[in-house]
Amino acid sequence: MRVTIYEVGPRDGLQNESAVVPVEVKREFIGRLAEAGLTTIEATSFVHPKWVPQLADAGELLESLPRVPGVRYPVLVPNERGLDRATLQQGVTDIAIFGSATESFAQRNLNRTVESQFEMFAPVVARALAHGMRVRAYVSMCFADPWEGPVAPEQVARVGRRLLDLGCCELSLGDTIGVGTPRHVEALLDAFAEAGVGPDRLAVHFHDTYGQALANTLTALKRGITVVDSSAGGIGGCPYAKSATGNLATEDLVWMLDGLGVETGVDVRSLAATSLWLAEILGRPSPSRVVQALAKEI
Amino acid sequence: MRVTIYEVGPRDGLQNESAVVPVEVKREFIGRLAEAGLTTIEATSFVHPKWVPQLADAGELLESLPRVPGVRYPVLVPNERGLDRATLQQGVTDIAIFGSATESFAQRNLNRTVESQFEMFAPVVARALAHGMRVRAYVSMCFADPWEGPVAPEQVARVGRRLLDLGCCELSLGDTIGVGTPRHVEALLDAFAEAGVGPDRLAVHFHDTYGQALANTLTALKRGITVVDSSAGGIGGCPYAKSATGNLATEDLVWMLDGLGVETGVDVRSLAATSLWLAEILGRPSPSRVVQALAKEI
Repeated sequence: MRVTIYEVGPRDGLQNESAVVPVEVKREFIGRLAEAGLTTIEATSFVHPKWVPQLADAGELLESLPRVPGVRYPVLVPNERGLDRATLQQGVTDIAIFGSATESFAQRNLNRTVESQFEMFAPVVARALAHGMRVRAYVSMCFADPWEGPVAPEQVARVGRRLLDLGCCELSLGDTIGVGTPRHVEALLDAFAEAGVGPDRLAVHFHDTYGQALANTLTALKRGITVVDSSAGGIGGCPYAKSATGNLATEDLVWMLDGLGVETGVDVRSLAATSLWLAEILGRPSPSRVVQALAKEI
Repeated sequence: MRVTIYEVGPRDGLQNESAVVPVEVKREFIGRLAEAGLTTIEATSFVHPKWVPQLADAGELLESLPRVPGVRYPVLVPNERGLDRATLQQGVTDIAIFGSATESFAQRNLNRTVESQFEMFAPVVARALAHGMRVRAYVSMCFADPWEGPVAPEQVARVGRRLLDLGCCELSLGDTIGVGTPRHVEALLDAFAEAGVGPDRLAVHFHDTYGQALANTLTALKRGITVVDSSAGGIGGCPYAKSATGNLATEDLVWMLDGLGVETGVDVRSLAATSLWLAEILGRPSPSRVVQALAKEI
């Protein structure tokens, strides 16, 4: 068995860190992630700098990234304006759009209804496909949101199905506030199966806010999921959650996958060394348990 | 389904914290744990104060604990001398002994071979049973130890089987250095099944050193284990591991069990409030993700 780790540290991680990191540091960070064996590294976002100043250097960063055979650098594209910037950029082969499973979050994050997000995304996906790009769709707030509480799995599956129908090749199911537990993961995957969407088109994206990310990931793996999102060192956080805990740490994930005999191609010690280096720059210790444990011997 | 949480914070937790906590604080800590709904709280250890000064007040503490119907306070008893102290004490109904799965740790912790530990424990168990006590046996280093590396599941099952044969009613399988992963958990439970020991006589005891504790626990639950060790707030650590991360945090465990619809009788918010209170006294933040997340709203 092989699992693809979709590394989101440079985008989802750095976007939610309070420190703004210089472009040279980002470049080195991403280069080191690729050296550690990661092959899919979401590098940045073409969101308006007014909203996410941390990623205002997206264009400059992409131009300078090391081109490594077999390594892809997807970029987040919130809307057509973002896509304009992505298509002007050399070498963007993969984009990701960011949808919402709930009305409250759609309103707050997209300033739209759940229904009208599809109108917004349709031309983005169509034009990206016409450029030969691969499009992933995030579905955020798949388990609960801070305003509505628990979200019905069927509602998430409906939203996901519509995004796939636009032409997206993969859905990343996000527990944006990190409250989900294994039974809920199973219910969600059941709802997708009911909607005709199998695990081959799904990725999981857990935040470790309540310590559940790895147990949830294990549950998803047992259900056939083979793409898992995580961030090196567990950096990041969620502006909508009440904790600073970020994404599932890539190191904690790799530790488990190594033990399960699942191939990832990632060297956990090399990765942890990179996270320790970045933690110094971010000015806060990595929340990853593996990074903390290996810190004593690296 | 119901899971019994075997709370080890006052013993395994406080024994491995550098701060020495006054007996009044311990008493309040244990009282609050019982109020939060925990029914099995390992209160202290009759180890020699020279080795564990943190628990030197064992007798005084036990005398003053609130007697709550349905709440048991097991105590760790390392040897016959410890049992002498336990039998002199009013109201000790449950003891625990602490065995080793590996030669290296048996040598370092017990100053004995694996084989000769049984001679040491035999009279402890026999006398405790004669006093009408219930005896649990910890098996430490069930996954790996720092000197020998990975430990063969069959070796652990052999040690565990011998401890049960002495008259112990339950084994607690400890991943003392926290390196285990789900497949190894399955292999260990398979080895016990081979040795004729089913999940009804086993508990699991994970440390979260590498972030694997909850995923491992989930794996054990799926195999029929219904007794899980954890420490409130994740306090503790292991003097033999390279990290300060302690036991699986009871709050993180309860969060998952609540989501799984598994009854525990424990109120996670009440427990987290207690862990926040204790963290102030210990002078370091709780490593529990749930405690950190709920800290913003408690």
